[in-house]
Formats: sequence, C-alpha cells, structure tokens
Amino acid sequence: MTLTLPAVPDVHDAALAQRLQQRIDRKTKPLGALGRLESLALQVGLIQQTETPHWEAPQLVVFAGDHGLAARGVSAYPSDVTWQMVENFLAGGAAVSVLARQHALALTVVDAGVRHDFAPRQGLLARKIAPGTADAFEAPAMTEAQCLAAIHMGREVVEGLPGNAVLLGEMGIGNTSSSSMLLARLTGTDLALCLGRGTGLDDAGLVRKLTVLSAVMQRHAAAREPLQVLATMGGFEIAAMVGAVLQAASQRRTIVVDGFITGAAVLVAARLVPAVLGYCVWSHRSAESGHGVMIRHLGVQPLLDLDLRLGEGSGAALTWPLLVSAVNVLNEMASFESAGVSDREPR
Amino acid sequence: MTLTLPAVPDVHDAALAQRLQQRIDRKTKPLGALGRLESLALQVGLIQQTETPHWEAPQLVVFAGDHGLAARGVSAYPSDVTWQMVENFLAGGAAVSVLARQHALALTVVDAGVRHDFAPRQGLLARKIAPGTADAFEAPAMTEAQCLAAIHMGREVVEGLPGNAVLLGEMGIGNTSSSSMLLARLTGTDLALCLGRGTGLDDAGLVRKLTVLSAVMQRHAAAREPLQVLATMGGFEIAAMVGAVLQAASQRRTIVVDGFITGAAVLVAARLVPAVLGYCVWSHRSAESGHGVMIRHLGVQPLLDLDLRLGEGSGAALTWPLLVSAVNVLNEMASFESAGVSDREPR
Repeated sequence: MTLTLPAVPDVHDAALAQRLQQRIDRKTKPLGALGRLESLALQVGLIQQTETPHWEAPQLVVFAGDHGLAARGVSAYPSDVTWQMVENFLAGGAAVSVLARQHALALTVVDAGVRHDFAPRQGLLARKIAPGTADAFEAPAMTEAQCLAAIHMGREVVEGLPGNAVLLGEMGIGNTSSSSMLLARLTGTDLALCLGRGTGLDDAGLVRKLTVLSAVMQRHAAAREPLQVLATMGGFEIAAMVGAVLQAASQRRTIVVDGFITGAAVLVAARLVPAVLGYCVWSHRSAESGHGVMIRHLGVQPLLDLDLRLGEGSGAALTWPLLVSAVNVLNEMASFESAGVSDREPR
Repeated sequence: MTLTLPAVPDVHDAALAQRLQQRIDRKTKPLGALGRLESLALQVGLIQQTETPHWEAPQLVVFAGDHGLAARGVSAYPSDVTWQMVENFLAGGAAVSVLARQHALALTVVDAGVRHDFAPRQGLLARKIAPGTADAFEAPAMTEAQCLAAIHMGREVVEGLPGNAVLLGEMGIGNTSSSSMLLARLTGTDLALCLGRGTGLDDAGLVRKLTVLSAVMQRHAAAREPLQVLATMGGFEIAAMVGAVLQAASQRRTIVVDGFITGAAVLVAARLVPAVLGYCVWSHRSAESGHGVMIRHLGVQPLLDLDLRLGEGSGAALTWPLLVSAVNVLNEMASFESAGVSDREPR
C-alpha cells in the first residue's frame, strides 16, 4: 500500500525560538509566570514562522463514520446514534455545536462513511467512502483502496477550507474500539491497557469489548505497518483525520487535537510523517482509559484535564480560547520598557 | 475586633440539584461525558437558584496594595512595581488587561493601599486605606480599624458593581508573603510548606523569605482569630478581597478565585462565613508552592493547571470561557428527546 506523503517542514527553528522567547521574557510579568501559555505562544510562533502569530478563520472539522464492529456490542449505544448525532451537530444542539458557536469556530461535518443517507445541507460535506466499514472481526475494516481514499479525502477537505488552524473532532459509534487497537498495535502495548469504557460500558460490556477486540487483533496479527493497521482495524473517519493532519501540517496550520480518537489519528499520521507532531496542540487529557498510554507514548502534555470523554471535538473547542490568549499575550502585552515597569535586579 | 457579617445563604438545595442533574443527564451525550463542565453547570445553577442560569456583566476586580514587609527583601521585585503595574493594568498592557479584553470582562482596579498617588482615571477606584501597610516585622500590618475599613471597602466595591459574577485579582509586591503566613497560621501548617518563590526568588531569596516570615509569625504569635491574623500579617488588598467575597456571596454572585493570594482571602472569608465556599469557582492550580496546601485544606479542585503564577486575576480570566461554556451547555444543548437521538439501552 503506497501513499504519496506531503512535505511537512520541521517546526523547529532555533533562531526564531530564541527571538520569541526573548519577546515573551520582556513582557510585564515575572519570567515564566504565564506557564504553559508561554510555551503555547512559542509553539504557535514557530508553526506560523513569525514573532507575531495571529489566528485566521479557525476550522472545527468533525469527521463521522460507522463501524461494522459496532454490531458486536462494543459500544453502549447503537450505530444509529452516529447519523442521529450528525443531524444534531448540523441542527446546533450538540455540545460541539454549542461550543463552536461560543468561540466563533466554523463547524464542518464530514460524512466520511456513515451508514445513512443525508440530505444535502449547509455545513455537511458528503464524502462517504462507504456506508460504514466492514466488520473487522471477519475482514479488514477497509480495503487498501478505501483506506487510501479516506486519507486523500481528509487531505482535500482541509485543503478546501480557509484559515490557519484546524480543530479536529469525530463521531462514530465503535471508534474507541478502533482507536484502542491502533494504539495497542502501533505502540506494542497490551490491549487491556489501551481500552476504556467509551461512551459508558458497564463492567460486563468492558469484558466483552476486550474479548472482541482481542480476537480482532489476533485476526489481523500480520498488520504491522501503520497503513495496514489503519486499514484493518481503523475507520473511515480516523483515516480521513490522518489525511487532515498530514495536510494541515504541510500547510503550517496549527492542529488542535481533541481526545482519544483524534489522538489515534495523529499517532498514525506521526508514524508516516513524524514532523506533524510539531503542529499539534493537545487540548485535553481524556477520561478514556487508553489516553494516558497514548500521551505518554507520544511524550505530549494536554492543556486541560476536565474528565471529558465526549469526543466530537468538544475538548478542542473548549481549549480554543487558550490558543487565542497565547497569541494575544504575545501581541498585546506591554514590555517592561514600553510600560515603564521596573524589572527585577539582574541575576 | 467585631465585624458585621452579611447573611450568606447555603447554596445547597437538594431538590434543585436533582432537577439540574436530570437536565444535564438528558443532554445528547453519554452520562457524565462532559466531566467537570457538568459539575460546574450544576454549581452555577445552584448559585443562581435556577435550571437556566445565565451570565450578566461579569466583573474582574483587581485589588492593589503595598506591603511594608516588602522592604525586607521578601520579593524579587521592588515595591514600586505595584503602582507601575496598576498603571499598566489601566493602560491595557498587562496580562489581565489583555485577557479581560479577550473575554469582554469589565476590568476595575481598586487602589486599596498603594504607596503612590494616582491621577483619577476611568477604571480606577481610589479606595486607599493608607499608602501601604506597616512593616509586619515590627508592628501589625494594619490596625484593627484599618483592617475593618478595608473589608468594608471591598464589600462596597462589589455592591457598587453590576452583574452576577466577580472574578478576583490582585497586585501587591510582597503579598505572597502575607498569604503564606495567613495560610500557615489559619491551617496550622508549617510555614515552610506554605511558602513559595513568589515572583521568582532564587534559593537564597527563598531562605531569606522563610527567615523573615518566621520572625514575623513569631512576633504575632498571639494572633489566632481570623481577623487578627488578617490584620497583623495580611494586606489591604487581601482584606478588601475578604470583603468582596463576603459581599458577592451574600448577593448570590459567582466568585471566580484566581490563585494563591485571592485564595488566601477566600480562606479568611470562609473562616468568618463558611457558606461563601459554595459560591467559589477555583480557576487554576497555581505554581506557587503553598497553593497545594491551600486547596487540599479547603478540599477544592481548581479547573486549570497551567503552571501559572502571575496573579492579577489572569488565571480567573483564562478560566472564564469554561464558566460560559458550562452555562451554554445547560441552556443550548438538545436533549435525547428533542434531537431524536437514541439513548443507550436502559441500565
């Protein structure tokens, strides 16, 4: 399986990083007193290659798809909830709709492979690869061609949107299962440690999920290479997000990662092009069990920790004001010199 | 020392809490999936005594004052930085100015006792009790009359402002010292555990701070009762915030606590009227060392943890969008019924 990968420039630039740090350090505050907001400002400056970054038309993109595996009882909710929630996103009643409105984020929902026929709508991109993936218990979830098509589609979606920031969201009953398997296989971690209750499985459901997913991983034991792992055990919305991450990074857009499932897409993308990680801001530490394994493996530290486990891009949206603050602090705060404030004694 | 305390109603209301929880649970999301945003929505509903809370004219109030003790080298910055930063707040160049602008928070700076004569200005309330407290190493920082006047002033300031939310901020070189001593004395904790580097003391400075503050606490060893502790080792801006907290709670306003110093004011206020705690939202876990002791003692859990240690109300302002989100989610999200989304199987 071959995929043409976009060129993604390394964000690191020692000279610019030093200039940004000096700019931050001259602001009217004790050194480092704005903590992680300062490192965020530095990262965004590096991504945008400037000492005066700005935000332009931030895009919240929610990729939706169904999973054949959902029929095996790996989720507390039926598959129909995927399309019902897509309708809810578009009607403005979902958490992500409310939060996108609050923060003036353009919201686009992408039908990457929902098992439902949607009427055309403002804000909905019909990019269905197929009506749901195959049951990964019996066959690869996607054919190689479908997987590549989904990645390509995700790239095109981002390419077609304006702005310099992409906030990722997803919807797909069964997609914590896919994400857990991707995480387990790609990092070599015991599946049980990568597994959580998703939308709220009880203990019996969790045991069933582990049993089913163990069998699926066994069935696809030969899949080791990232794209094979993605095709056999992933989902259309996850593959599309892999493409979205690659495209966004190649265009130097800031990528705001939501929770566990969007994180799994970043994990795959980073296996293909490690430099994408420099463009990612990890919004929150999810309450889904496997997320801790994921962020430790990637060595990243999410900004928020609010026990969220909703997905949809809700965590990314909640984090957006912090990204705005980081840029505002860099651009609008006075320096000791400009404000006539006495600095501490030289150290 | 006697103080007339306002009546503060207990926020707890089992019937309303149950109605709010049911309302949250019918929203289109798995049970509890919005984590701490849900408990925040519940708290705000209880504070405002309604299932449909709303925000009205949120006020960010920064209380500023100088500390006689600052002359003893307990801070990395000179006392003059207090008035210089007040000018910076008013000119719009400080972190809190930038963040208040971002979130459309009305910003009021209160001169509670800065050692400087300010020209009258839009946004500045001249409420100086005295030009700086006395040196607590040699005398009580405030007389009893001054302490009561500062508390009264803080109450009047809040009473004179519109809206149903007060975000607290402060400025005062030396005020982490006061806060550490209040914390140590009121909670019976070893001073060394309540002490931090403030605006950035080096190791030698930290040792000096501990030495000085130990002597101050020794000098005021007889002060045990909250108001005595506040008067002998506190500051004008801290006493004013005690009043602000009491007043805000008595009017059922939500109080957004910033970091270590505003937290010390809440600690004192809660000793006087424990019910104020129900009105407090703890914005962030400060990087200042003693803050952990404070929040464990009070049994509260801040929303953010971003290594901030700036004060000014910057953490409160950064947290504000989460309070808006909590209310928006409660008011704007669809229910399973209204959106036609299938709920999980009955448990």
